[in-house]
Amino acid sequence: MSENISVLGLGLMGTALAKSLLAAGHQVTVWNRTPAKADPLVAEGAKQAATPAAAVAASELVIACLLDSRSVTATLEGAELRGRVIANLTTSRPVEAREIAALVTERGGDHLAGGIMAIPQMIATPGALILYSGSKAAYDRYEQALSAMARPQYTGADPAMAPLLDLAMLTGMYGQMAGFLEAAALVRSAGYPLRDFTSGLLVPWLNAMAAQQPAWAEKMESGDHGTDVSNLEINRSGVANLVRAFHEQGVRPDLLLPMQEILERRVARGLAHEGLSGLVEELVSD
Amino acid sequence: MSENISVLGLGLMGTALAKSLLAAGHQVTVWNRTPAKADPLVAEGAKQAATPAAAVAASELVIACLLDSRSVTATLEGAELRGRVIANLTTSRPVEAREIAALVTERGGDHLAGGIMAIPQMIATPGALILYSGSKAAYDRYEQALSAMARPQYTGADPAMAPLLDLAMLTGMYGQMAGFLEAAALVRSAGYPLRDFTSGLLVPWLNAMAAQQPAWAEKMESGDHGTDVSNLEINRSGVANLVRAFHEQGVRPDLLLPMQEILERRVARGLAHEGLSGLVEELVSD
Ligand SMILES: NC(=O)c1ccc[n+]([C@@H]2O[C@H](COP(=O)([O-])OP(=O)(O)OC[C@H]3O[C@@H](n4cnc5c(N)ncnc54)[C@H](OP(=O)(O)O)[C@@H]3O)[C@@H](O)[C@H]2O)c1
Ligand SMILES: NC(=O)c1ccc[n+]([C@@H]2O[C@H](COP(=O)([O-])OP(=O)(O)OC[C@H]3O[C@@H](n4cnc5c(N)ncnc54)[C@H](OP(=O)(O)O)[C@@H]3O)[C@@H](O)[C@H]2O)c1
Repeated sequence: MSENISVLGLGLMGTALAKSLLAAGHQVTVWNRTPAKADPLVAEGAKQAATPAAAVAASELVIACLLDSRSVTATLEGAELRGRVIANLTTSRPVEAREIAALVTERGGDHLAGGIMAIPQMIATPGALILYSGSKAAYDRYEQALSAMARPQYTGADPAMAPLLDLAMLTGMYGQMAGFLEAAALVRSAGYPLRDFTSGLLVPWLNAMAAQQPAWAEKMESGDHGTDVSNLEINRSGVANLVRAFHEQGVRPDLLLPMQEILERRVARGLAHEGLSGLVEELVSD
Repeated sequence: MSENISVLGLGLMGTALAKSLLAAGHQVTVWNRTPAKADPLVAEGAKQAATPAAAVAASELVIACLLDSRSVTATLEGAELRGRVIANLTTSRPVEAREIAALVTERGGDHLAGGIMAIPQMIATPGALILYSGSKAAYDRYEQALSAMARPQYTGADPAMAPLLDLAMLTGMYGQMAGFLEAAALVRSAGYPLRDFTSGLLVPWLNAMAAQQPAWAEKMESGDHGTDVSNLEINRSGVANLVRAFHEQGVRPDLLLPMQEILERRVARGLAHEGLSGLVEELVSD
C-alpha cells in the first residue's frame, strides 16, 4: 500500500531512508535545513517542503533523522502535530527519547522512537534492522511501510526502550572492537599476517564465543553465577598473564585494564569460584 | 597409525588430552605430580610412569600440559630429552615459550609450542583447535597423531608464535566479553528480558560486526585508515553519548572508558576524519 510519508533530515542516513521509501512506491515529502541536499531525491520523485511545518502537514507519518535530539526539538517547533505519527530515528539517549515522546503527545501527536542498527549502505538490504518503541497502535498501523527501510522490530511501549537497546548493541560492538584492536596490535608485534589471523582464527573464535552469551544471560537472570568452565581466579590470573605479555611485546594493554581491575575486585570479594557472568554485578552504580 | 605418546600433567585439560589419545588407539603413558589422578586413565588402558623421566623415556612424543611454564621446567629436570619431541601445550607467554624451546633443543630434543583454543569438554570435538609453532619436522611427523586431540594448525617456526596467537585470541574474547557485560548491565537497568536481547539482538549483531574485522585488518596492514563508514569524530561523540546514558541509567561504564580515552586522544591528534582501524597505532608503546 502506498502511503504519504515525510522525512525530516537528509544527511547520509535520512537520504538513504527517503530513497528506500521512494523505491517502495510511497509518496515521499522531504525537508532538510540545507535545501540543496534534497535535489537528488526530488529527481527521483520526492516532493520538497519549504519548512518542517509544511513537511509535517504533508503526511500522517513523519520520520525524523537528524543530528541529535536537540535538532529534532528545534525542527518540530511550530509544526502542527495533531493526528501525526512522529517516528524519531535520530540516535538518542533514553532520557531524550522520553522527552521527545512527551513533547509529541502533549501536542496531540503519536510517537515512535527508533534505533537504526545499520549504516546507510545497508538500508533496504536484508541485514538492516530498526528497533521501535512507543505507540503500539502507530507501529501496527505503519509496520509494513516502515519495513521498506529495514526489518522493523517493536520492543515495547516505553519510548526509551528502542534507543536503550540500540545503545546496548553499540556497547557490545565497542567492546568487541576494543578486543580486536588489542589482538591486532599483539599480532602485528609478532609479524604474523594480520589478515590470516583475523579471518582464519579470530572471527570464527569470536563467533563461537558469542554463542556462549545466551547461557551467560541466563545465569545473570537467575543470579546463579556458578561455573563448570572457568572461574574468576583462572580468568584473573589469565588476564594478568596477558597484560604481562603485552608489555613484553611492546604493546599497550590499555583497553584490557578495566577488565583486569574488575576481575581483581570481584576475586577480592571472595568470589574466586564464580564464573564471569557475575561480573555484571560490579557494573551497578553505588 | 598407533604411536607411543606420553602425557605429563593430568589436570582437567591433560586428562581430556590423554583420554582423546587413548580413544584414538595410541599407546599412552601418563605422569602426574599427584599420582592418583592417573587412576581413571589407567583403567582405560594408559600406562602410568613413576617419574617424569620414565614417562619421557617411554615415548618419542611427549605432551606437557601443566599449570605454567615454571612447572614444565621443573618437571623436565633430569629427563633425557635426546631424540624426543616435547610438545608443550601449557599456556605460556611468548618469552616463556622461547625459553622452554631453547632448553629442550640444548638438551638434544625437538620442540613444539601449542596453544589450546578449547575447554576440556571440547577436546576431540569438531570445534576444538590447537595452534602449534616450532619444529616443522616434528609437526609434520606427528600432525596426524595430534589431530586426535583437536584440529591442529601450524603457525610457524618461531616457538613463540602459537602462544602469542593464543593470547591474541583470548584478548579478542575478553574485549567481546567486556562489551557483553556492559550491554547486559544496561539492558537489565531498563528491565528488558536479557535472554531475548542476547540471543535475538546482540549475538546476530556481533556476528555481523565481526565480519567487518578482516576489512579493518587490511586497512591496518596498508596503513590507510580512511573510511566511508564512520569516522573517529562520529565514534568519539557516539561513545561520549553512550557514557552519559550509562550514568543516567545508574550503570558504571568502566569497561568502555579506555575506548573513550583512546578515541579522544586520536581525534586530538587531528585525525578525526580517519576510521576506527587507525586506533591500533595508539597501542604501540612509546
Ligand atoms: N550514518 C550512520 O551510519 C548512522 C547509523 C545509525 C544511526 N544514525 C543516526 O542517524 C542520524 C543522522 O545521521 P547521519 O549519518 O544522516 O548524519 P549527517 O549525515 O551528519 O546528517 C545530519 C543531519 O542533521 C541535520 N541537522 C543538523 N543540525 C540540525 C539542526 N540544528 N536543525 C535541523 N537539522 C539539523 C543536517 O542538516 P544539514 O544538511 O543542513 O547540515 C543533516 O540533515 C543520527 O542520529 C545518527 O546517529 C546514523
Ligand atoms: N582448562 C581449560 O579450559 C584450558 C583451556 C586452554 C588451555 N589450558 C591450559 O592447560 C594447562 C593445564 O590446565 P588445566 O585446566 O588442566 O589445569 P589444572 O586442572 O589446574 O591442572 C594443573 C596441572 O598442573 C600440575 N602442576 C601444577 N604445579 C605443578 C608443579 N610445580 N609440578 C608439576 N606439576 C604441577 C597439576 O598437578 P597436581 O594434580 O599434582 O596438582 C595438574 O596436573 C594450563 O596451562 C592451562 O592454561 C586450559
